[in-house]
Amino acid sequence: MGEETSLQLDDRLARDSHLVSRLDLCELRLAKDSRWPWLILVPMIANAVEIHDLSEENQLTLARETAKVARLLKQITGCTKINSGALGNVVRQLHVHVVARNEGDAAWPGPIWGHGEAEPYDEAARHELIGAIRERL
Amino acid sequence: MGEETSLQLDDRLARDSHLVSRLDLCELRLAKDSRWPWLILVPMIANAVEIHDLSEENQLTLARETAKVARLLKQITGCTKINSGALGNVVRQLHVHVVARNEGDAAWPGPIWGHGEAEPYDEAARHELIGAIRERL
Repeated sequence: MGEETSLQLDDRLARDSHLVSRLDLCELRLAKDSRWPWLILVPMIANAVEIHDLSEENQLTLARETAKVARLLKQITGCTKINSGALGNVVRQLHVHVVARNEGDAAWPGPIWGHGEAEPYDEAARHELIGAIRERL
Repeated sequence: MGEETSLQLDDRLARDSHLVSRLDLCELRLAKDSRWPWLILVPMIANAVEIHDLSEENQLTLARETAKVARLLKQITGCTKINSGALGNVVRQLHVHVVARNEGDAAWPGPIWGHGEAEPYDEAARHELIGAIRERL
């Protein structure tokens, strides 16, 4: 669709998340925060900021990839509710959050963005979660 | 796609927002909160909770309608950033938020959901905004 693909990842996104996989359009990443399983899809399109600025083809691919990731995250975690969103008030590079929420989690029922401090995974738990996600992609 | 269409709107969604228009899939509503122009798309599908539970056809229609609404809201308001999201921790009926955010607004750069108390529109401002949205749909 004439949109330049790009692997240039924002520094903060790179620092605060681990690479899980590369999908057709998006890089799939896991946020470094064990309070809630939190995946981030980053379309590899140069200078993308708003979803509606993508080509229609890429918008629909993003919707498909987001739905796929949401479904598998719900299956893996058995969470109460998926929260998905594209905010970008701090990091402007277009990215879509897919978060597994549970009644009684630290921010429930409010949103997670900007809530408290991230708690790192222990390495075994992170490997297990990333492994379970990759298996179902 | 075999999904039952439904006009049964959750009581809280009905109470906290005004009807703007009916699109092919969604009812488009304006939240009763003048702190930020805030639109809500409610797919008229019975018992829908997660986006990924919709049929693929309806998922893609929802993506198209959300993008259309986001683009026109950005055009009308000249906002810094669109925030879109499907949370549903409180109201489980599937609904997608599309919010016009500006640097320095009351919740910036945090999310709006759960932030402070709604401030009602004065009637003239609300009519003007709804009129501008309808004109561009």
